[in-house]
Amino acid sequence: MSNSTPNQAPAATQNVDLSDLAIRADLADYSPVRGCMVIKPYGYAIWELIQKELDGRIKECGHQNAYFPLLIPESFLKKEAEHVEGFAPECAVVTHAGGSKLEEPLVIRPTSETIIYHMFSKWIKSWRDLPYCINQWANVVRWEMRTRLFLRTTEFLWQEGHTAHASAEDADREARRMLDVYYDFMTKVLALSPLIGQKSDSERFAGADKTFSLEVLLRDGKILQAGTSHHLGQGFAKAFEIQFQNKNNEPEYVHLTSWGVSTRLIGAIILGHQDESGLILPPKVAPIQVIAIPIYKSADEREKVLNECDAIVGELKKLGIRAKVDANEQTSPGAKFNEWELKGVPIRVQIGPRDIENNQVELVRRDLKQKIKNVSREGLSERITLMLDEIQESLFQRNHSWREENTFEANSLEELNKRLDEKGGFGKIHWCGSAEHEAKIKEIAKATIRVRPFEEAKSEEAGNCIVSGNPSPGRVYVGRAY
Amino acid sequence: MSNSTPNQAPAATQNVDLSDLAIRADLADYSPVRGCMVIKPYGYAIWELIQKELDGRIKECGHQNAYFPLLIPESFLKKEAEHVEGFAPECAVVTHAGGSKLEEPLVIRPTSETIIYHMFSKWIKSWRDLPYCINQWANVVRWEMRTRLFLRTTEFLWQEGHTAHASAEDADREARRMLDVYYDFMTKVLALSPLIGQKSDSERFAGADKTFSLEVLLRDGKILQAGTSHHLGQGFAKAFEIQFQNKNNEPEYVHLTSWGVSTRLIGAIILGHQDESGLILPPKVAPIQVIAIPIYKSADEREKVLNECDAIVGELKKLGIRAKVDANEQTSPGAKFNEWELKGVPIRVQIGPRDIENNQVELVRRDLKQKIKNVSREGLSERITLMLDEIQESLFQRNHSWREENTFEANSLEELNKRLDEKGGFGKIHWCGSAEHEAKIKEIAKATIRVRPFEEAKSEEAGNCIVSGNPSPGRVYVGRAY
Repeated sequence: MSNSTPNQAPAATQNVDLSDLAIRADLADYSPVRGCMVIKPYGYAIWELIQKELDGRIKECGHQNAYFPLLIPESFLKKEAEHVEGFAPECAVVTHAGGSKLEEPLVIRPTSETIIYHMFSKWIKSWRDLPYCINQWANVVRWEMRTRLFLRTTEFLWQEGHTAHASAEDADREARRMLDVYYDFMTKVLALSPLIGQKSDSERFAGADKTFSLEVLLRDGKILQAGTSHHLGQGFAKAFEIQFQNKNNEPEYVHLTSWGVSTRLIGAIILGHQDESGLILPPKVAPIQVIAIPIYKSADEREKVLNECDAIVGELKKLGIRAKVDANEQTSPGAKFNEWELKGVPIRVQIGPRDIENNQVELVRRDLKQKIKNVSREGLSERITLMLDEIQESLFQRNHSWREENTFEANSLEELNKRLDEKGGFGKIHWCGSAEHEAKIKEIAKATIRVRPFEEAKSEEAGNCIVSGNPSPGRVYVGRAY
Repeated sequence: MSNSTPNQAPAATQNVDLSDLAIRADLADYSPVRGCMVIKPYGYAIWELIQKELDGRIKECGHQNAYFPLLIPESFLKKEAEHVEGFAPECAVVTHAGGSKLEEPLVIRPTSETIIYHMFSKWIKSWRDLPYCINQWANVVRWEMRTRLFLRTTEFLWQEGHTAHASAEDADREARRMLDVYYDFMTKVLALSPLIGQKSDSERFAGADKTFSLEVLLRDGKILQAGTSHHLGQGFAKAFEIQFQNKNNEPEYVHLTSWGVSTRLIGAIILGHQDESGLILPPKVAPIQVIAIPIYKSADEREKVLNECDAIVGELKKLGIRAKVDANEQTSPGAKFNEWELKGVPIRVQIGPRDIENNQVELVRRDLKQKIKNVSREGLSERITLMLDEIQESLFQRNHSWREENTFEANSLEELNKRLDEKGGFGKIHWCGSAEHEAKIKEIAKATIRVRPFEEAKSEEAGNCIVSGNPSPGRVYVGRAY
């Protein structure tokens, strides 16, 4: 058994090469198109599990899936002033199609507010149509300068929800509700413990009144924005003329929200849980939850242990567990151990001829790298089912403790910078709210304000901005983010 | 009860305005982008059911889902000579991105052979890697001159499968196997009875050795190509240098297949099953399988019948049936009947106060427009379950008979033209195989060769081409297609 325990992770702030890890674990590959990746079957299977789990939760909220065009007239993007400023520099533009120059260029959606709200203006007529709640699973393109597999790619896959409401209160409640849906999903399914709160003005979505965010502390001490939910107010509604007749038959503009998570979540899973041997996948999003490895010398032994592996995997599959036998004759058991550890499979079952004789198996928990010998063959499926739950819970606790242990108060920029240099994490600092001083934090401590948390903002005492000494209403969380 | 029976459909060759029907049934809407549609929740829910059913079947074949970039370097498209000729005129081209002109333009994928095979050339090394089987669910863009909702849109959603094999025989078998998977899916899930066979050279996929196709006869007498499967041979393998070491350690080019179906299937469902009242959805792809309509006068009655509706819908949902109550107070029962008929919901349950007293309900089968009064409340869920199966089967039989009844032999171009003018359908004609005479058929009878069927090609006697009188190896199927 290795010495690793859940909370003894690699030293923080060391840079894990995510791209290298993603490629070695066969999740993805570089493509010949700048900044675009190929999601390979093992990586895509994680995305399918994410989609299935999250789609169900979104539908339970009463939201319906739909599909809107990939291409958006350039003029649409320009209708909302902040929005075009935020997204125009990142757009890929179609200027020619069908052999001719287009009269108006089309941009590939960087996000779909404009095209969806154009349609909302046709569809929404009365207060009876509200709330109007749509979700879309789609690809989007943002021409980023620096890309990194899963975390920041030119094209990525995501879901974007869009809802229209009769009042600002309703929209605010909805934006918070979807943040809670994401929170619940990330904690229960991805085994991550994100910090939630509200973004500063400079980090707000282009065109939103408020942006709420979920921020995950990764094993390397850096922070990843894993999802956002925006209360958009009436800016887009006015730009796209989305009016409804209220109960007094007067026209009013709707109040909008939008919210999304993307294939970046796969990056969050990788960097939120990995150790020195590779990925550690939470069982709920592990394409293979149990890998059975036959251990044998002779052909006769091979047949026996393979039969036993098949029998065990068959039993597990009946219980809905995603299990597989690695029957590859080209690789040694040791090489197989390494490969499936790298790929993060939660439980490994090893079976040799002696195990069959003794009616037992050996189990290895990936998260703890813990070998459990002499596990009785009787009740094995039940034991594995329980163990998968334990691993799921344990990974969540590990990420949660990691965040708690690496959240610290800092009362000067120097202190903040020093601590972030050492271990990364979330620094809690007082900040007066000015963009100028926010920029100073970035300059000195190479850190951005991640969120103003909901609870702290209320409960905590006021203080003084660590940059200016001006009054601060309560501490915000800063850190170095991907 | 109406006089309509399954095989008394609207007169053939009358043009149903699919776009109008799709919009009235709330499946889709026009978008502000030329030729692109918005798929609304009711239409998208059909697509989700199609995806779920088909994805399972594809995975059962051992194929794995992956995701490849939307944007393809223009030079890639040019590597396979036939392919670029076929697709370049339809491409949407990105020339600018991130505020600058690109060094090399990127095309939005019209199909993904080129980018996927570029990756195959990196991934496939040895005969042990074969067969290499990938599927992708994605959006594609083809700049079509004339578009029509669902049948031909500039952007559409589809799945495209791509497989690499060690021999031509393996690839041919795979292309045929996937055709069979589509056939099974269309007959069992979509309740359509496609004609399958091989395309003529002029209708082959650009870059394929052989194209197999599934052709559905619609209620209006026209034909829809509902899916294709291609044996691509080694053309792309040579263009993209996809070589493997065979068992003798010699390099060989792989043999490729690709196959796809798209949101066009929704068009096939609409036009394959509709009647004068609107859509008739096969239960397996109906987002709502049973709609319960409360019938009442007073508020007191309303409460009673709504409770009963809820109880029935609750029971049905427990059985996995997609059921819903239409509790809208703004519309009359008559308006609701029309709306849900238009939307093609397979079974309507009507419940009034008298029904509750008598412990019964009234059922209406959408496909037959058949009212069944005094249906006992006891065992209602079981009765509805069976009825859904009956509707599914009956719709298949209706489409199958429709094709059989409207398949005819024609021995001259005039005869073919006259019959197609009258009722549409599939004409079986002798054709010598020359592209010149194929063009003549198109000119005189406004018809294209749909397929050379597999069985007939073997069993049927030879004859003489109806254009040239030259020898023909057996009859081919022609018709007027969307």
